[in-house]
Amino acid sequence: MASKKKRVYLFEEGAASMNAELGGKGANLAEMTNLGMPVPPGFTIDTATCNEYLAAGDKMPQGLWEDVDAALRVVEERAGKGFGDPQNPLLVSVRSGAKFSMPGMMDTVLNLGLNPVTIEGLIAGTGNPRFAYDGYRRFVMMFSDIVLSNDFPKLKKEHFEEIFNALKAKVGAKQDTDVGAEDLAVLVGQFKEYFQKQTGYEFPDEPKEQLRLAIEAVFKSWNNPRAFTYRNAEKIPHDLGTAVNVQTMVFGNMGDDSGTGVAFTRDAATGEKMLYGEYLMNAQGEDVVAGVRTPMPISDLKDQNPKLYKQFETIAQKLEKHYRNMQDIEFTIEKGRLYILQCRNGKRTPAAAIRIAVDQAKEKLITKDEAVLRVEASQLEGAMHPQLKDVTKQKDKAIAKGLNAGPGAATGMAAFDADTAARLGKGGRNEQIILVSAETTPDDIHGMLAAQGVLTSRGGRTSHAALVARQFGIPTICGCGELSINGAKRQFTVGDTTISEGDWITIDGTTGVVYKGQLPIEASAITGEFAELMEWADKARKLMVWTNADSPEQAAEAVRNGAEGIGLCRTEHMFLGDRVPIVQRMILAEDDKVRQKALDQLLPLQKADFLGIFEAMEGRPVVVRLIDPPLHEFLPNHSEVQQQVYVERILNPTSKKLAKLEALLSKLEEMHEANPMLGLRGCRLSIVFPQIVQMQVSAIIGAACDLKARDLDVHPEIMIPLVGHVNELKHLRGQLEQVAKDTMKAAGVKVDYKFGTMIEIPRACLTADEIAREAEFFSFGTNDLTQMAFGISRDDAGGFLPQYLEKKILKEDPTVSIDVEGVGKLMRLCVDLAKQANPKIKLGICGEHGGDPASVKFCHTLGLTYVSCSPKRVPVARLAAAQAALEEKAA
Amino acid sequence: MASKKKRVYLFEEGAASMNAELGGKGANLAEMTNLGMPVPPGFTIDTATCNEYLAAGDKMPQGLWEDVDAALRVVEERAGKGFGDPQNPLLVSVRSGAKFSMPGMMDTVLNLGLNPVTIEGLIAGTGNPRFAYDGYRRFVMMFSDIVLSNDFPKLKKEHFEEIFNALKAKVGAKQDTDVGAEDLAVLVGQFKEYFQKQTGYEFPDEPKEQLRLAIEAVFKSWNNPRAFTYRNAEKIPHDLGTAVNVQTMVFGNMGDDSGTGVAFTRDAATGEKMLYGEYLMNAQGEDVVAGVRTPMPISDLKDQNPKLYKQFETIAQKLEKHYRNMQDIEFTIEKGRLYILQCRNGKRTPAAAIRIAVDQAKEKLITKDEAVLRVEASQLEGAMHPQLKDVTKQKDKAIAKGLNAGPGAATGMAAFDADTAARLGKGGRNEQIILVSAETTPDDIHGMLAAQGVLTSRGGRTSHAALVARQFGIPTICGCGELSINGAKRQFTVGDTTISEGDWITIDGTTGVVYKGQLPIEASAITGEFAELMEWADKARKLMVWTNADSPEQAAEAVRNGAEGIGLCRTEHMFLGDRVPIVQRMILAEDDKVRQKALDQLLPLQKADFLGIFEAMEGRPVVVRLIDPPLHEFLPNHSEVQQQVYVERILNPTSKKLAKLEALLSKLEEMHEANPMLGLRGCRLSIVFPQIVQMQVSAIIGAACDLKARDLDVHPEIMIPLVGHVNELKHLRGQLEQVAKDTMKAAGVKVDYKFGTMIEIPRACLTADEIAREAEFFSFGTNDLTQMAFGISRDDAGGFLPQYLEKKILKEDPTVSIDVEGVGKLMRLCVDLAKQANPKIKLGICGEHGGDPASVKFCHTLGLTYVSCSPKRVPVARLAAAQAALEEKAA
Repeated sequence: MASKKKRVYLFEEGAASMNAELGGKGANLAEMTNLGMPVPPGFTIDTATCNEYLAAGDKMPQGLWEDVDAALRVVEERAGKGFGDPQNPLLVSVRSGAKFSMPGMMDTVLNLGLNPVTIEGLIAGTGNPRFAYDGYRRFVMMFSDIVLSNDFPKLKKEHFEEIFNALKAKVGAKQDTDVGAEDLAVLVGQFKEYFQKQTGYEFPDEPKEQLRLAIEAVFKSWNNPRAFTYRNAEKIPHDLGTAVNVQTMVFGNMGDDSGTGVAFTRDAATGEKMLYGEYLMNAQGEDVVAGVRTPMPISDLKDQNPKLYKQFETIAQKLEKHYRNMQDIEFTIEKGRLYILQCRNGKRTPAAAIRIAVDQAKEKLITKDEAVLRVEASQLEGAMHPQLKDVTKQKDKAIAKGLNAGPGAATGMAAFDADTAARLGKGGRNEQIILVSAETTPDDIHGMLAAQGVLTSRGGRTSHAALVARQFGIPTICGCGELSINGAKRQFTVGDTTISEGDWITIDGTTGVVYKGQLPIEASAITGEFAELMEWADKARKLMVWTNADSPEQAAEAVRNGAEGIGLCRTEHMFLGDRVPIVQRMILAEDDKVRQKALDQLLPLQKADFLGIFEAMEGRPVVVRLIDPPLHEFLPNHSEVQQQVYVERILNPTSKKLAKLEALLSKLEEMHEANPMLGLRGCRLSIVFPQIVQMQVSAIIGAACDLKARDLDVHPEIMIPLVGHVNELKHLRGQLEQVAKDTMKAAGVKVDYKFGTMIEIPRACLTADEIAREAEFFSFGTNDLTQMAFGISRDDAGGFLPQYLEKKILKEDPTVSIDVEGVGKLMRLCVDLAKQANPKIKLGICGEHGGDPASVKFCHTLGLTYVSCSPKRVPVARLAAAQAALEEKAA
Repeated sequence: MASKKKRVYLFEEGAASMNAELGGKGANLAEMTNLGMPVPPGFTIDTATCNEYLAAGDKMPQGLWEDVDAALRVVEERAGKGFGDPQNPLLVSVRSGAKFSMPGMMDTVLNLGLNPVTIEGLIAGTGNPRFAYDGYRRFVMMFSDIVLSNDFPKLKKEHFEEIFNALKAKVGAKQDTDVGAEDLAVLVGQFKEYFQKQTGYEFPDEPKEQLRLAIEAVFKSWNNPRAFTYRNAEKIPHDLGTAVNVQTMVFGNMGDDSGTGVAFTRDAATGEKMLYGEYLMNAQGEDVVAGVRTPMPISDLKDQNPKLYKQFETIAQKLEKHYRNMQDIEFTIEKGRLYILQCRNGKRTPAAAIRIAVDQAKEKLITKDEAVLRVEASQLEGAMHPQLKDVTKQKDKAIAKGLNAGPGAATGMAAFDADTAARLGKGGRNEQIILVSAETTPDDIHGMLAAQGVLTSRGGRTSHAALVARQFGIPTICGCGELSINGAKRQFTVGDTTISEGDWITIDGTTGVVYKGQLPIEASAITGEFAELMEWADKARKLMVWTNADSPEQAAEAVRNGAEGIGLCRTEHMFLGDRVPIVQRMILAEDDKVRQKALDQLLPLQKADFLGIFEAMEGRPVVVRLIDPPLHEFLPNHSEVQQQVYVERILNPTSKKLAKLEALLSKLEEMHEANPMLGLRGCRLSIVFPQIVQMQVSAIIGAACDLKARDLDVHPEIMIPLVGHVNELKHLRGQLEQVAKDTMKAAGVKVDYKFGTMIEIPRACLTADEIAREAEFFSFGTNDLTQMAFGISRDDAGGFLPQYLEKKILKEDPTVSIDVEGVGKLMRLCVDLAKQANPKIKLGICGEHGGDPASVKFCHTLGLTYVSCSPKRVPVARLAAAQAALEEKAA
């Protein structure tokens, strides 16, 4: 005979540290009990017992029932009630609870212990027969569904609901609440009858039999298919087992000296230190949820029952102190006695998260490092963008959901093309505008900048629209496939809703939800605590945070947000606007002389661009990426020119205009590419047309020389994009070093500059040792690297990526957060090879991932020098970098 | 004092094995001398001496000159001539010769030893003053250019040519040969005068001074920039040094008992065992090259001088036996005495290579394994395609050069679109047609199949045109960027040439050259020796060779060529032809019912396709790839529909046709992708539209069941393309296994089938362990893998890849031969991870690289199970696989 094992733990026998044995829920109830909190008494059967039961082929271990019985007797005593007692019945809840929270496991059974006898005791106690019978019918349904429907599928909840619906029809009730106590009593009878018909057994009335069946059901649920699949997916071991929690039910609806409520230890919206929450007297939790009665603010309890309020306040403070975090506490008052049912770290708005963390550090409740770890970096962004006011109240106005591509909320009148948006929006009639379009192209920038927000039906989080959105801080939703846009009719439809040009819509780029109408928006300011938190973060982090900025304005904003350099200055935006005609002349030039003339015109303009940016960065390093996109992006749209040609051919077949258009069309067709992403761009373009980058390097170094001559500090770093083979870099660097030297010689000034490359092609990672020998820095272009490693075009991903996320084929969007398993492996390979070959090399990242907290943390583990992200995300990256360093220190 | 080192080796003191010391050329001359061949006497200064010279700062090592002098005395004695002797002067050639043949090193100086005195002896000996003075003026020019122009750039050859041209103008000579002996004597004087003017020195007349200067020039040339760069690129160490070869000149133009010629020990065209070559009496080698006199076949020498012929024949046989390979021998007869100047392995046609290897093995000259190693696998393909007859004679008809995309020659009339080609070509008027087009799409297949050959101005070796070309064995040139095609005028121009529709052109898809006019083509048959060689190869190889085939005809051809399975059966071709309307109905279906109806129509058609292929493969495994390309590839061309809409809008704005066209256009726009290569295709398509692949699996398994029911053997392997994440495979395989089971259940038959995936996305390689656990086989799709690892679209590479190859940024086209450093690294990573995770997994390759010999060898080292290539390339792959195994054994 085996020695007697301890299987059943009264709450007071456990602790938070025993979550492996007692499960998360059981351990937490034990912890609160031992803190002296008034937790309704109960006990937990440990996880080992579950394994014993299953290993024995679903057999209750010998002696278990005796132990349960003994624990139950202690609980009866504590509760002052008896299990099955006709006058003062003890009712219990039975819940599963594994070490990790796990969907697919058995749900809660409430009110266990009810039967035709104990119901009378409950009615006597509450004076509320309707409540008692409602609890009874719920118990029969829940017990049947949860405990037995695996063996008897006809016992699923929906079958009982059908019976209930039939009864409601018969008595003429519209809602559940319209059915009275007597009818509910009839319903309980019908339920039990149905149960017997399906199972061949009477519904178990004996409370201990109910309890035994419920406990066994919890054990068995450990191996139900959904739980099994979940553990496989999450790599949770299958041998942990689940605990079973049996706890006394308490009721807040036993009269005017009873009640229920929820409260936070600090204001969850602002972070202010005060009790914050609501309660309702003579009510159950579900009454609050149902919204039949309006709950009162917790502060009212102070007047209504100062003693109880004081007791609760003391408990709340004790819990916050114990858990060292703001708590969300559920409580019930049963006949004047306070019970704590649950406490957990409270959810809070981004602004509150910051304030609470900083306050708690100042109160010495936590350390500054802990404060830094307390605020989720991704939340930070939410604290920096305009937000929808009272989101929850607007739910019914939501009409569609797309990808949350550019955070922040915006409201405006729908405009269906960029020109209209520009005409009506900022700089035009100054109306509030939301640009709605299938997708956006570089030609649409004027419209995007004039709009409050952008909404597209195609494209992913790194589509053109999304990139521009984040770059310029425009709230944007992309890839909202539900929209059916009719450009000709200038409207879109989604479901039954039609939005025409000029109709108001509101978008929340933080969540991706589109609303009908003009909803209230609130700006969010960076508070004093925010700055303090950032200061603490900066002390902790090792990664530098740089920014992606293409203009002096963006550079200045980024510096204000704490950027320590520019990691990506894209030069192609400098080819737009009023320079387009010159750029087009350059591209369409039939001979080198004409091309050179156009480039000579561009040189002083580009030089002025760089001067402005270098000045704004005040001596911080600036990585300038040489021209990257295919040249056809700067030419008129192919399909539009085609249309003009077709039309002209019919209407004016002999016009000079036609000849000119046809020549342009022919050039466009010559330059057309099947997959421009993988075509003539980046360094390839520069190898075929070296004059453009020669002009650019001349402009960069020329601008730097000018500043140097004025005794200002400047550190340009020239980045050659899209290198896949070391020889590409060698070839170009050779030419461009010469240009740099010539430019400095002409200016009579020496400048500290670097040459490096963007690592964005898988092959570059695989051969990083060779490339590192020819570069002074690497910057991971994780947008393209992800696209190529995954074989997914960011512009086309809208066709399947949303489905992938929905079907859990991918857990996360790899264009948002670095795919550590795949792309990350490639990056690590690259870092290892590069550092071996060139220990002095500087490594950074400038893809969109540079502003994603999880990716920033990954970059920290890679040992990069810096991450670079859009100006708005700089604080996010600073915090994430600090957290990565602190987490590493703790590990 | 250092001990005396041996620096100078008479030819008889060396051997072939001493190529590090004597350089390749010196070692070979030594070897021939020691074989008793009548090699003109001479000596070699070793490579160490060159290093000594350079290390000392360009100083002749002490004692070297004494050693040279001593060797020279032996040579004088052997030659029976004296260096500087006025009556019987010894003239020598001086040549560099490093261990590896190396461009940029010093060229040959001939006739060294000539001066105003020895020239008289030469005239007396040859009785030909013009020859003597021609040699003299060449010597002065060559010596100045090669020995001294590094220090004096004005001594470059072209400056002397100018002087010569001036003289020719003066004496009224059109060609060099029109200038007589006396004028040449004047020219020598002018050359020497020019020399003095440029250098300030007299031209050196003293033979030993000439020799010293020439030897030093050879030493110095080791470090000239071109040689240095070449060694860097080829990773040849810089400390090898070069040897110097000094050899007696012999002359074939010393009268009618002198002559010169070149002969092969076997027929270089057919491989027949016979002396094969040409000679010319009283002539120098350059006379043969200049084509002034027509040389005679070597067999004529038998009649003209049987003794000499016999001597030469014996020498030839001895050399072949010694070198164990067919030899290419240069000889000169000086006054009745035979000299062998050089011998090397002879170049041969593919057909000859096969016959010679097999014959020599049968003669026991070499082993069968050696025979297998002797034939270059890439040559084999040349033996299987129609070839241009007498290529060298057609040089002047060449008008352009593109990428050799589909091997074989073809001639026909130019047709500028697929419909015209189909109307005029095979199946139409049966004219011979070359389809000329900017590029081809799947819509053009009918035109390509009707043509003798295809010529495109865009696209690389793996563009659509090239893939189809190799699949169907159509001679094809792609990416011929020089062509300017004017589709409207139905013509193309290149340089001054304009080719209009109907004009004859000829293309050589093996070399990429385009010719004007109708040139003669010859078919090439697989001879008996070919089959024998293949049999020996099959015994040696470990890799299996499978084929890429989409039809029963291709499958049968591949089996005839030795294929052991199908590694890639593309199913999308089964969606073309008369099935297009059904396929389009399926794609454009607005609801699932309509779509399913179209799929139900396709099911029996696809099933019939598979039945035919399975039958043709007679029980060999067949890997069927489920649908891969984006659906819009099956729809009408977007830009054409657009044109129709624009035109219709103007001409018939209210027509029903317009409404229909607009609906189609709207659908096309909805499906349009910016980068279709990285878009909704492969398994992504199947996850979004599962019905298509469900139909395909039902057809595959259904066909297999039918054959099984007829007691025939069948092994389908179902391949899911474009998997980048294991969950894609899991998701689809789960669904499709069910379809397979359902289909077998319905048929009442069990079939042996496998599920696997194509590895064509970098991420799949990086996470191959996870994917391998869910797959029974992997097949590397190296076309896409190369595209994504390199970030290069095969359809757009024409814009820069040719320049990359020209500028040596890439040594080889990675779309032709696996890029071992980058893509290969990824493949090896994949193989290692996959085998660790699933030791039973079967690994193959089905990209175009599967037919490239270097890539096949790489696949052998990876330890793959099979390579799969187009039917025509199966023998190539068999041979390459055998060679890989034999080379490995030898290593």
